[in-house]
Amino acid sequence: MDNRPIGVFDSGLGGLNVLKELKKKLPNENFIYLGDTKRFPYGSKSKEAIIQISKENVEFLINKDVKLVIIACGTATSQALDSLKEEYDIPIIGIIEPTILNMKERINNDSEVTIGIIATKGTIRSGAWENTILKYIPDASVINQSAPLLATMAEEGWINNKVAEYTVKEYMKKFDNVNKLILGCTHYPLFAQLMKKELKSDVEIIDTGVELANYLENWLMKNEKNSEKKNGEDKIYLTDIEDNFLNMASLILDSISNVKKIEINKI
Amino acid sequence: MDNRPIGVFDSGLGGLNVLKELKKKLPNENFIYLGDTKRFPYGSKSKEAIIQISKENVEFLINKDVKLVIIACGTATSQALDSLKEEYDIPIIGIIEPTILNMKERINNDSEVTIGIIATKGTIRSGAWENTILKYIPDASVINQSAPLLATMAEEGWINNKVAEYTVKEYMKKFDNVNKLILGCTHYPLFAQLMKKELKSDVEIIDTGVELANYLENWLMKNEKNSEKKNGEDKIYLTDIEDNFLNMASLILDSISNVKKIEINKI
Repeated sequence: MDNRPIGVFDSGLGGLNVLKELKKKLPNENFIYLGDTKRFPYGSKSKEAIIQISKENVEFLINKDVKLVIIACGTATSQALDSLKEEYDIPIIGIIEPTILNMKERINNDSEVTIGIIATKGTIRSGAWENTILKYIPDASVINQSAPLLATMAEEGWINNKVAEYTVKEYMKKFDNVNKLILGCTHYPLFAQLMKKELKSDVEIIDTGVELANYLENWLMKNEKNSEKKNGEDKIYLTDIEDNFLNMASLILDSISNVKKIEINKI
Repeated sequence: MDNRPIGVFDSGLGGLNVLKELKKKLPNENFIYLGDTKRFPYGSKSKEAIIQISKENVEFLINKDVKLVIIACGTATSQALDSLKEEYDIPIIGIIEPTILNMKERINNDSEVTIGIIATKGTIRSGAWENTILKYIPDASVINQSAPLLATMAEEGWINNKVAEYTVKEYMKKFDNVNKLILGCTHYPLFAQLMKKELKSDVEIIDTGVELANYLENWLMKNEKNSEKKNGEDKIYLTDIEDNFLNMASLILDSISNVKKIEINKI
């Protein structure tokens, strides 16, 4: 058992979607969330820059005495997870492998499944999602779509206007025949309703936050790292604060009952 | 007189809009264009990163024996021009001051003009446009609007679809009372027609390429740097090449009669 908080970092506010799912599933845990809004988006940065920035984020969380670090950001997971694991002793869990491992449990016949991935350009280019899918579900078909506009649109708070609607319509065109669609960037659950309208009704939309929360529940038990008591000291740290960030944060976190206990700090 | 080519760099393909205007106005000049498509967009990078990258771009052009360097990119001008001028002996001309100086000649009464600026978030934050306007046109009113989506939308080739239309509509809301609207990012002329639909009919849209071309014509004469002969060896270098980049390049350059003489190289 370990009552220390869980650290979560993301390139911006999209990771709050992950935090929300983690809090739903793991109500006894406390969280420290670091949103690197100042350097958002990571999608257009070099691998070296993303590794350097991610190290700073991990060190910030280690200094807050977290028991493990979650990388909520798809781009940071795809570019920096391996380097971070080499550098630090603390357990570091990315968003990709847990999502695939948890999702795989619901797939009976690999060769019958077509999995769509929508993610930032850098993440798609890295092949991190596709490679991890094919590692664990080798006979699956995979369809990639990069979506360079969606994350920025979300950070602008444009998640339900005409721009969002037509952008999603455009990006969904490739996914006519998928059975599952992985939202490979933490911002995308904000567009899930719009996506559903464009997809066949039986397509399962895979929310990395939901999958990660299931995975983490098992991981904490197996590693005897569960927290015993809820003391409600969740904290959100942002590297830059703008009004629309705060609007989006409350939009995502409104559905969490104890949102009032979350402190937002600029560092 | 100086027959060497003029170097132009930009964060991506948007600067081709500037190149196009330069070529129209200065048909005897040859150009070497460097589009840093690999590291696009600059808008979300730190000042230090933009200075470092811009130095690499200038050095690439110096090695091609250019007679001067034009920074077509608003973000690079706002963040790096001063550092570049300190570092290199070659004349380096940004996009901001020439635009303002050339535009100023058409303004009779400073206090009666309201100037809108639309640019990337970093450029707006830097205050580079507003400060330069107020330096030369001190009694003007200035209205800023950051537009983090437009440049990415342009590089995606989305310049005339519903997404572009609604995005422009959203961004134009602030400009109800402007007399002039400066397109502070080289990509934005691609959206000029959509913008016009949203603005009052007497608003003058300021295209930095057009203003710069006028400024440069005078500058070349004054500094006796004109080229005497046209040898048609314009070259475009891109740091990354994707299909949609090439589509956009031809979209912009189609209207230049000698587009067929332009070589595109990946470096």
